[in-house]
Amino acid sequence: MEADKLKEILRRSQVTVSKRRENSAEHSWHLALMAFILQEYANTPFELNKVLSMVVVHDLVEIDAGDTFAYDPKGNQDKAAREEAAANRIFHLLPKQQAIQYKALWEEFEAGETVEAKFALALDRLQPVLLNYYNQGSSWKEHQVCKAQVMERIRILEEVSEELWAYAVHLLEDAVQRGYLLP
Amino acid sequence: MEADKLKEILRRSQVTVSKRRENSAEHSWHLALMAFILQEYANTPFELNKVLSMVVVHDLVEIDAGDTFAYDPKGNQDKAAREEAAANRIFHLLPKQQAIQYKALWEEFEAGETVEAKFALALDRLQPVLLNYYNQGSSWKEHQVCKAQVMERIRILEEVSEELWAYAVHLLEDAVQRGYLLP
Repeated sequence: MEADKLKEILRRSQVTVSKRRENSAEHSWHLALMAFILQEYANTPFELNKVLSMVVVHDLVEIDAGDTFAYDPKGNQDKAAREEAAANRIFHLLPKQQAIQYKALWEEFEAGETVEAKFALALDRLQPVLLNYYNQGSSWKEHQVCKAQVMERIRILEEVSEELWAYAVHLLEDAVQRGYLLP
Repeated sequence: MEADKLKEILRRSQVTVSKRRENSAEHSWHLALMAFILQEYANTPFELNKVLSMVVVHDLVEIDAGDTFAYDPKGNQDKAAREEAAANRIFHLLPKQQAIQYKALWEEFEAGETVEAKFALALDRLQPVLLNYYNQGSSWKEHQVCKAQVMERIRILEEVSEELWAYAVHLLEDAVQRGYLLP
């Protein structure tokens, strides 16, 4: 029931039909679906279970810490400290063994060093690019984001999947052409 | 991007903080989280990956077929036919091999015969009970649902997990005591 609160945390991205802001629970579901469907594009094979568990729990800390916009330098200054405190409270609502297991999983995701963490992180970066592209650049325009910023943000894709990287780069180039994203 | 539309499908259950109706995408995420956290209560061990993939895809058919309320006899008459047509369209947006794989997975969930399908189905039945209980019986009251109807609906839990079944029965008894649910 604590997890139910993640449905209240709004991201900057918008869903493509009703154009309302996406929440972190439905975003997490979208990543899980993408993990299944897109696993075949990974450069390096990975343990699917682990990627799934990471994407399902990766945003739970936002119940306390809120969603920090990727292109907000101020919000990102204290993001790590706020999320660490949140992880300590939220994961420790579980029995001790599970608390340790899921907190470690979240830390592994945040560190982004293992094959599984990199793939999960890459999906987390790719999904808002898709939403922004199919919403004619809505949150990019609103926050005057330029292509170099998004490229920097999704750079992890290059290491994770040759095809997904090529696809994302193509989308960004097209987004600039169409005026969705600043050059 | 087709999957993004599931975020528009509203269920009868309400989320516990803002009391708005829950959508099927965030509901599916909640089930995935429950699968991880509650797997230890299963009477029979199961393949977690399979349960996860089932709960992630189980509601995609609602993009075309809509959500059918559990206690709506009329809506349930043609539910199977509507969902079958939806599955044929939606899963076949994927490459053929994936289309066959995910449609079979959805059919396995719907049939509810394998250990994995039973566990996934049990979570799908338990989660709205939790939301209703913690919302003081909101959608039970609205549709004048009685305890016997919910008991029938969650009966699958008895086979799946002794502890989760005992817990759910306790919640329902308490819900009647508190006036959330008709006796």
